Amino acid sequence: MGTLLVHISDTPEPGELAHLRARLDAGVELTLGPDLPADPSFEVLVAGVPSAEELDASPVLGVLLIPWAGLPRATRALMLERPEIAVHNIHHNAVAASELAAALLLAAAKRVVPLDAALRRNDWRPRYEQNQAVLLEGKRALVLGYGAVGRRIAAVCRGLGMSISAIRRRAGEATAGCPDQIHTPEALHDLLPRADALLIALPFTEATKGLIGEEELSLLPRDAIVVNVARGRVVEERALYRALAGRAIRAAGIDVWYNYPESEDDRQHTPPSEFPFHELSNVVMSPHRAGAFGVGELEAARTEALADAINAAARGEEIPFRVDVREGY
Amino acid sequence: MGTLLVHISDTPEPGELAHLRARLDAGVELTLGPDLPADPSFEVLVAGVPSAEELDASPVLGVLLIPWAGLPRATRALMLERPEIAVHNIHHNAVAASELAAALLLAAAKRVVPLDAALRRNDWRPRYEQNQAVLLEGKRALVLGYGAVGRRIAAVCRGLGMSISAIRRRAGEATAGCPDQIHTPEALHDLLPRADALLIALPFTEATKGLIGEEELSLLPRDAIVVNVARGRVVEERALYRALAGRAIRAAGIDVWYNYPESEDDRQHTPPSEFPFHELSNVVMSPHRAGAFGVGELEAARTEALADAINAAARGEEIPFRVDVREGY
Repeated sequence: MGTLLVHISDTPEPGELAHLRARLDAGVELTLGPDLPADPSFEVLVAGVPSAEELDASPVLGVLLIPWAGLPRATRALMLERPEIAVHNIHHNAVAASELAAALLLAAAKRVVPLDAALRRNDWRPRYEQNQAVLLEGKRALVLGYGAVGRRIAAVCRGLGMSISAIRRRAGEATAGCPDQIHTPEALHDLLPRADALLIALPFTEATKGLIGEEELSLLPRDAIVVNVARGRVVEERALYRALAGRAIRAAGIDVWYNYPESEDDRQHTPPSEFPFHELSNVVMSPHRAGAFGVGELEAARTEALADAINAAARGEEIPFRVDVREGY
Repeated sequence: MGTLLVHISDTPEPGELAHLRARLDAGVELTLGPDLPADPSFEVLVAGVPSAEELDASPVLGVLLIPWAGLPRATRALMLERPEIAVHNIHHNAVAASELAAALLLAAAKRVVPLDAALRRNDWRPRYEQNQAVLLEGKRALVLGYGAVGRRIAAVCRGLGMSISAIRRRAGEATAGCPDQIHTPEALHDLLPRADALLIALPFTEATKGLIGEEELSLLPRDAIVVNVARGRVVEERALYRALAGRAIRAAGIDVWYNYPESEDDRQHTPPSEFPFHELSNVVMSPHRAGAFGVGELEAARTEALADAINAAARGEEIPFRVDVREGY
C-alpha cells in the first residue's frame, strides 16, 4: 500500500487528533496547519474555508474535504475555479440536527418555553387557558429536504402519528420501502396549504435561498408550525418575523439565523436577526445547535467520519458525500 | 329503546353541552347539577369528585362516570364503600399526554429552555460549550406504564431510533406485533441502570406512590433523563429535587407536581413543590398540561368520549375503561 499525504488546516484538539490517528490506515501521513508544510505535496486537504494559497500550494491536490456538512459560499467560489479538485464533506451531524428539529417542533407545538417560565414564577394560569397547545397526531408534516436529516425527522413525525410529505430535488432516487410521499420542488405551493408542520432540512444553495418567503408562509394553515434546522436564509427573514408577529402562522422553532458572531468576543452580544424575534413568545430560539458543536458523542463521530473519508482516499475507494460545486451541495 | 337518566354534576359549557347532546342517543335524558334533580332516579352519574349525597341520592345508580383519566383519592374512598356502583373513566387525553412527554424529553435532552433564554439576550456562548445536548438515537427508553399514553410515548421513542423497554402490571395482556420488551414491575431495578430515558405514564395508586425514590434515581445512569406525565407523587419529591440539583441524573421534564392551586385566585402564586425546582436549569417545568385542559381539539374529544360511554350504557353495551376501585385505576 502506498502513502497518502493529507494536510489539515485547523489542527484538531489533542484528543481528537489521537482519535483520528488511531482510525487512519497505516499509509496515511498527516501534516497540520495553519502553516503549510515546507514542501507541499499533499493529495488531500482538510479545510472548511481554505485559502487560495492552500488550494494552490500542492501540485497533486485532488480532494478538498470539508469537515462538516455544507459548502461555504467563499469555498464554493474558489472551487468553481478549480474543477480538477473534488470536494467532499461529512454528515456526522444528521442525528443531532434531526433530534433538534423534533425538539423544536414539539416545544413550539406545546409552548414549552413560556409555560416553563410561568411555572418558575409559581404561575399556573396558562394551564387553564385555551389554545396553549396544538396536537400533532393525525396532522401532516411537510419535510423539505429528504437526506440524512430529513429522513430522520420524518421517522420521528411518523412516531407521533403524523402523515409525511417530503420534497427533494432528486425525486428519482430510490425510495424502496419508504412510507412517505416524495415530491419534487414544483409541488411546494400545492403542498403548503396542507402542511401542519413545515420542517426545513435543505442544503443552502442559490436555488433554496429565500425559498420560503411571504407567499409561501401565507399558504400555510394559520395553525402551522415552521421549523428550520438548515440555513437561516432558506427562509426570508422579514417574512418569517412578520408571519410570527402577525400570527399568520402559529409558531416556529428556529435553529439557524441571519446574523452570527464573527469573533469569540462577539458571542455574548450578537443579535441573530435585525428583527426582534426575542420579543415573540411563539418562537423557540436555538443558537445553531444542529451542527452539534460540543456534543461529545458527535465530536467522536465527526473524527470518525473524517477518518473514513481519508481512508477511502488512501485505498482508492469512493469517498462518500461528493459535493456538486455548481449545485452548491 | 328505553330511557336512560344521566345526571351530570358539573354543568358543561353551553358549546360542550350542545356537542354532547348532539352525540347522545335519543333515549338518553340529562339532568344537570350542581343541584340534584327533585326526584333523583338517574342510573348514571357523571362526576369526578362526587359527594356521598350525590352517590346515595338515586336508588338505581349503577355507574359513576369520571370525566377524565384517573381516580381521585376521595372518590376511591367513597366507591370502596359502594361496590355495587361501577366506576368508569375516560382517556381522551392520551394523545396530549404522550406528545407532551415527548416534548419534555427532547427539551430536556437538548436544553431548549436555557438556550432559548440565552439567545433572546443575544448570547450565543452555549452554542460553543461542551455537553449542552445528549443524543437519543441508539439509546434506551424505559416506559413505566404501557397503556394508551405509554404506547404512544414508545412509538415516538422508536421514531427517534431508541430501543424500548416497558413495564406494566398486567404483563400477560396481548402484545401482538409489539416491538417493545414488556416487563412486570419486579424488573424495575434491573432495568433502571440501562435506562437513558425514564418515561413515567403510570396510574397513581397505592402501589405506584413513591415508586421512583432515592434508590431508583441512583440506579439510573448519570446522563439519564426522567420525564413524568403521570402524577407527581409517583416520584418522591425530595429525591427528585436532590438528584437534579446534585446532577445524579442529567435532566428532567416534569408535568405533574406536589402542590396545586386550590382556587382560581391561587393560580398566580402556588409553588409546585416545597423544593426550589425553579432554580434548576436542568428541569423543564410544565404546569400539568397532559390533562389537556383547553386544548380545543381535545375538549371536543372529551365530550365525545363521554357521549360514547353514556351511549354504551343506554344500549346495554360494555362501557369502556372500567376502573378497578381496589387497585385504584
